[in-house]
Amino acid sequence: MSGDINRQFRLAARPVGLPKRTDWQLTSTPLPQPRDGEVLCRVLYLSLDPAMRGWMNEGKSYIAPVGIGEVMRAGGVGRVMVSKHPGFAVSDHVSGGLGVQEYAAVDGAQLVKIDPALAPLPVFLNTLGMPGMTAYFGLLDVGQPKPGETVVVSAAAGAVGATVGQIAKIKECRAIGIAGGPAKCRYLVDELGFDAAIDYKAEDVRKSLRANCPNGVNVYFDNVGGDILDIVLAQLARRARVVVCGAVSQYNNTTPIRGPSNYLSLLVNRARMEGMVVFDYADRYPQAGREMAGWIAAGKLKSREDIVEGLQTFPDTLLKLFSGENFGKLVLKVA
Amino acid sequence: MSGDINRQFRLAARPVGLPKRTDWQLTSTPLPQPRDGEVLCRVLYLSLDPAMRGWMNEGKSYIAPVGIGEVMRAGGVGRVMVSKHPGFAVSDHVSGGLGVQEYAAVDGAQLVKIDPALAPLPVFLNTLGMPGMTAYFGLLDVGQPKPGETVVVSAAAGAVGATVGQIAKIKECRAIGIAGGPAKCRYLVDELGFDAAIDYKAEDVRKSLRANCPNGVNVYFDNVGGDILDIVLAQLARRARVVVCGAVSQYNNTTPIRGPSNYLSLLVNRARMEGMVVFDYADRYPQAGREMAGWIAAGKLKSREDIVEGLQTFPDTLLKLFSGENFGKLVLKVA
Repeated sequence: MSGDINRQFRLAARPVGLPKRTDWQLTSTPLPQPRDGEVLCRVLYLSLDPAMRGWMNEGKSYIAPVGIGEVMRAGGVGRVMVSKHPGFAVSDHVSGGLGVQEYAAVDGAQLVKIDPALAPLPVFLNTLGMPGMTAYFGLLDVGQPKPGETVVVSAAAGAVGATVGQIAKIKECRAIGIAGGPAKCRYLVDELGFDAAIDYKAEDVRKSLRANCPNGVNVYFDNVGGDILDIVLAQLARRARVVVCGAVSQYNNTTPIRGPSNYLSLLVNRARMEGMVVFDYADRYPQAGREMAGWIAAGKLKSREDIVEGLQTFPDTLLKLFSGENFGKLVLKVA
Repeated sequence: MSGDINRQFRLAARPVGLPKRTDWQLTSTPLPQPRDGEVLCRVLYLSLDPAMRGWMNEGKSYIAPVGIGEVMRAGGVGRVMVSKHPGFAVSDHVSGGLGVQEYAAVDGAQLVKIDPALAPLPVFLNTLGMPGMTAYFGLLDVGQPKPGETVVVSAAAGAVGATVGQIAKIKECRAIGIAGGPAKCRYLVDELGFDAAIDYKAEDVRKSLRANCPNGVNVYFDNVGGDILDIVLAQLARRARVVVCGAVSQYNNTTPIRGPSNYLSLLVNRARMEGMVVFDYADRYPQAGREMAGWIAAGKLKSREDIVEGLQTFPDTLLKLFSGENFGKLVLKVA
């Protein structure tokens, strides 16, 4: 057990802009002892997500901020080493909030047992995890796409975006992805079956969007905010739905967030913009997971993980999310 | 018949910022002759509305812009002088798109007969006209207030806002109005029964809103955009609805419209922002008009008109809408 110590990344300071190395403290503590009802897990994989940037900020949000000195919050997959919870046995695989560390003692009620026979473990942090659930409920419940409609998604090669586009296709919509670089764009069209992909680094997004959405955008699933949100707002169809899932372009701003100048397109087009937080759908995760596992088995829903090894790389690996560098769900392999 | 000439205000130039006197041309033409299916009306009252500013701009919107050289579009109330439409007789009162002029020859299919016994004529441009319909459908269909919820409305002493707040009270909500100046604020509370009014010219809107909406804002009916929209967004309750009806603070911008920086509050609060255009509800105007006439008769729905006399005052009178100067529905008395 690594000499019985647990290495942990703790939040040392609230970042201004992109998190710096000095915003983190790497600590070594003795292995935690699980109390009654808890489970001690070896952390195997951690999910790195843009939302983590928001958790580092002070202030009211949909979830409490991580406190200074606390282990950084992260979802992960682990293997049970000691169980003091009747629902789990040694060697079970679990997913839940494990934190950026090598070992975690967690209340069993906060964990879900997963079946590694269903899919490789990292997939439980992707399509069968929070990103998959976010895509599923955000698109279907909030976006309410109808067959034949045009669905546009930004950060389309990311964990959420790739699943949004594929579910749009399953629901008989046209799926248009916006992503950065030719490799990601080819992947969306050739591997995932998107109808088209727009390379925001190389193309005039306004023009390409107009060419690809001649009847306007019926559903826009927004992961990025900023300029791209404004461009899509200007091309909404009547009664369009904009799903506000994130705004990764704005998370490291040191100035106030830039609001969408074209928001009056909502008025002109009788459209709506609606926010969603995946945790609200927790009671429906099992049903969604079963449906998505079925799509995976049928070859209709593919996933791709970008796996980086080593807990110690965490501060740098996290930054890949904000440079547009990662391709697929970013996962940190801890053990 | 004024020597049988028809004075008309035509759009001479597309305004930059506030419309100037030179953006208008006052022309005198012979009285129009109604063709088959048309009706010749004497224009009695014209409705002056913030939306008119948008109609003067080039470019796609929910309605075509007024062309350069064309008579300015305006809704109004008139009396039939000559009828070549079987639905109307001489001396009938009608409402519809009459334009900023003394006489109008209009397709009868575009006019509605009104009953002057029901209410004074200017009320048909207010509570029983477009502003009333906008308030009714915007609040009830888009805002969907539930009893006990808190409804906030901006430009609350304006034609739409005053009706929004009163309908909110009829629907057993708390109604909070934002308006400029003590006279308007007193009017909202003392005359119209709002629970509170916030004077944006004298108060810290952020603080007053927090004091008046301790559980957050469930429905925000936005007529103004700009800073006030941002302040309210920051105080939304879970699953709030923001009705985007207008953005009078932004209509005369010479720089791009400022988008709402706090739009990510939609995400945090799982809230939605939705646009509405009253014309979409045209088939339900009669039902809404009957219901609102009933509320007026029962003393539950009051209206106030700010009536300015004289067609020639039109360019200056219109500006009252953007200075916050008008108090109640702004109406131009033409004859």
